[in-house]
Amino acid sequence: MARMVSDEIAAAMGSSSWIRRMFEAGAELRRKIGPENVFDFSLGNPDLPPPPEAADALREIADSLSQPRALGYPSNAGFMPFREALAAHLAKEQNVPALQARHVIVSCGAAGAIVSFFRAVLNPGDEVLVPAPYFVEYGSYCGHFGGRLRAIPSKPGDFDIDLAAIEAAITPSTRAIMFNSPNNPTGCVYSEESISALAALVNRVNEGRDRPVFLLSDEPYRFLTYDGVKVPSILDKSPYAVVLGSFSKSLSMAGERTGYLAASPDMPDADAFLAAVTLTTRTLGYVNAPIIGQKLAMRILGCGIDLSIYEVRRAKMLAVLDAAGLEYSCPKGAFYVFPKTPGGDDVKFVGHLLKHGVLAVPGSGFGRPGHMRLSYSVENDVIDRSADAFARAVRSY
Amino acid sequence: MARMVSDEIAAAMGSSSWIRRMFEAGAELRRKIGPENVFDFSLGNPDLPPPPEAADALREIADSLSQPRALGYPSNAGFMPFREALAAHLAKEQNVPALQARHVIVSCGAAGAIVSFFRAVLNPGDEVLVPAPYFVEYGSYCGHFGGRLRAIPSKPGDFDIDLAAIEAAITPSTRAIMFNSPNNPTGCVYSEESISALAALVNRVNEGRDRPVFLLSDEPYRFLTYDGVKVPSILDKSPYAVVLGSFSKSLSMAGERTGYLAASPDMPDADAFLAAVTLTTRTLGYVNAPIIGQKLAMRILGCGIDLSIYEVRRAKMLAVLDAAGLEYSCPKGAFYVFPKTPGGDDVKFVGHLLKHGVLAVPGSGFGRPGHMRLSYSVENDVIDRSADAFARAVRSY
Repeated sequence: MARMVSDEIAAAMGSSSWIRRMFEAGAELRRKIGPENVFDFSLGNPDLPPPPEAADALREIADSLSQPRALGYPSNAGFMPFREALAAHLAKEQNVPALQARHVIVSCGAAGAIVSFFRAVLNPGDEVLVPAPYFVEYGSYCGHFGGRLRAIPSKPGDFDIDLAAIEAAITPSTRAIMFNSPNNPTGCVYSEESISALAALVNRVNEGRDRPVFLLSDEPYRFLTYDGVKVPSILDKSPYAVVLGSFSKSLSMAGERTGYLAASPDMPDADAFLAAVTLTTRTLGYVNAPIIGQKLAMRILGCGIDLSIYEVRRAKMLAVLDAAGLEYSCPKGAFYVFPKTPGGDDVKFVGHLLKHGVLAVPGSGFGRPGHMRLSYSVENDVIDRSADAFARAVRSY
Repeated sequence: MARMVSDEIAAAMGSSSWIRRMFEAGAELRRKIGPENVFDFSLGNPDLPPPPEAADALREIADSLSQPRALGYPSNAGFMPFREALAAHLAKEQNVPALQARHVIVSCGAAGAIVSFFRAVLNPGDEVLVPAPYFVEYGSYCGHFGGRLRAIPSKPGDFDIDLAAIEAAITPSTRAIMFNSPNNPTGCVYSEESISALAALVNRVNEGRDRPVFLLSDEPYRFLTYDGVKVPSILDKSPYAVVLGSFSKSLSMAGERTGYLAASPDMPDADAFLAAVTLTTRTLGYVNAPIIGQKLAMRILGCGIDLSIYEVRRAKMLAVLDAAGLEYSCPKGAFYVFPKTPGGDDVKFVGHLLKHGVLAVPGSGFGRPGHMRLSYSVENDVIDRSADAFARAVRSY
């Protein structure tokens, strides 16, 4: 057989992601038992429409298309009026009044920002620490450029960051510590105290260090928390902090790939760093974030989707888990819950759930076996109707 | 100074692209002598608006935004109705009736497709051959993953592919031969004869070869040719052929980053190849091409911009060069011309032009010193008014 694919990607295809495998299993199940009997909690795709203001905003953009270069290239770092609006927005959110447009780069989603970032800062052999469980694609994002992701188990129970474990894992090869809050897959939100301690650790480690350790906060779910919980700011806590975000979830426009990277205004040599990320954004072929997405997000930046919808879903989901007798840590944000799987073997239990029409993703897919991820970004009715299937599955296991 | 940037990117920043340098020189010049006295031929950004049909198409998309997941993730390989439409379009254009949606991947512009392709097929140390002059970013695109671009000088005069030179350069490390037609920066269109011979060479080389050589045609300017010249199809000439294209120029929507990759339907193990490119599209953080761009391009796929505008500009540009006594090969496509620079030192001559308010890009920036690239994607009036500046610059050199 001709070898059409590189050795590394051929290996990656062999171990293709759990989310992908569940997606395929779900398609087969729908054909077999009918879509109404399938309860799919495997996808992190927000199912709400964009805010109602989006339609008029898009019509405004349509009205402007007769201008020359209406959809031409903006600067690689983003459409300047949007960068300015975003900087003003983030200055408040991140408690850094000094933040300016030049500290903000508009990206092809948060994922594009992370990949551009890694390309800009990683030397081959550099390590990136991440509390586990974590979003599994992080490994690929740094692996493209010879970086290595090291998962540091979070504390049992509430999945809080284990600061001592992270400190113990830092070596001269450490180039970044990244975290995701509200967390995918656990729904946990790291506390002000945890984040401050982590930032203080990074600042201490970087004293006199030739190649500093970056502190990366991936926060596409920042807008979505429950019970009055607030996601702590990070740019005000460390000059080495970098925030990554997107409008995929907050404005339900995941397919339009519009996100951003913002650096602490106190970062040493910030201009070189930002120029490097702008360069890699260009040479990685993103070139710029989609111009329609940028102009759309700029117009509806202050809008939001109805969070109470997710609040109701969370309550329903937790009621289903309670009734089935499944143990979990109550999620404080995002639309995920990460219950323990009975018996400990998550892959086996998820396979068993599948027989009852329920699709979940094994915790093994997020570097934390013994659990499973359920996404409740699905309709109320599906959650309600899944109660029987969950209860039967647990009873019969 | 803290080292915020990786060693490789720090080096790349030091040798930042000529186009970028001219962009900055142009901004300074506009401030100094006024924008009306600057004749900027340095940019490859189409300055026309999108086709008139685009506005209504975008309004239709706006009307559909109230549906759940209206702007949600499509499949990583693209929005299926668009892939189907694109496959039907390319089957005719490329003379391959067997081409189906599964052979087509929608990408974040042609650049995104190239980077996804290289990540999918290159092992570190693999070589990519390209006729020079060539679009300078190709080097970065394969360099991200340990690939190495080898420029093979095209024939003097008309810049036709030097087949013997390419054949002589093929080694066991060769993984791809890529070309760009209509060509940036020369405007040349490779003939049916040249492309057939190149394809035959690739087919012959691949007989019994374990890791085949791909034949990559980067053709964002396919729609834009003059004097009845036709760009030859490629997918019908080799099972190892891959086409990369975009709507950046043909629909004047460069900022919306919507392009594609299509593989020969006769490619051995095509499914593995296409699955690999789909995987790298995801893990490189593109995730999917922008959904609004996909839906927009799908609706206006058959539309075009007014080519006669470029035809007039070409005539005006060539008249300016004739009047100034500059030598060139008549461009058959795209909106570039690549004249010889008097005296041979292109960087020096471009610097001299700058003093007369004319911005060009030295051929050195495209791997071909002794020439300069002029983009006539600018208004007629600017071309006309530049005649004096060109003539004075050449006279005083």
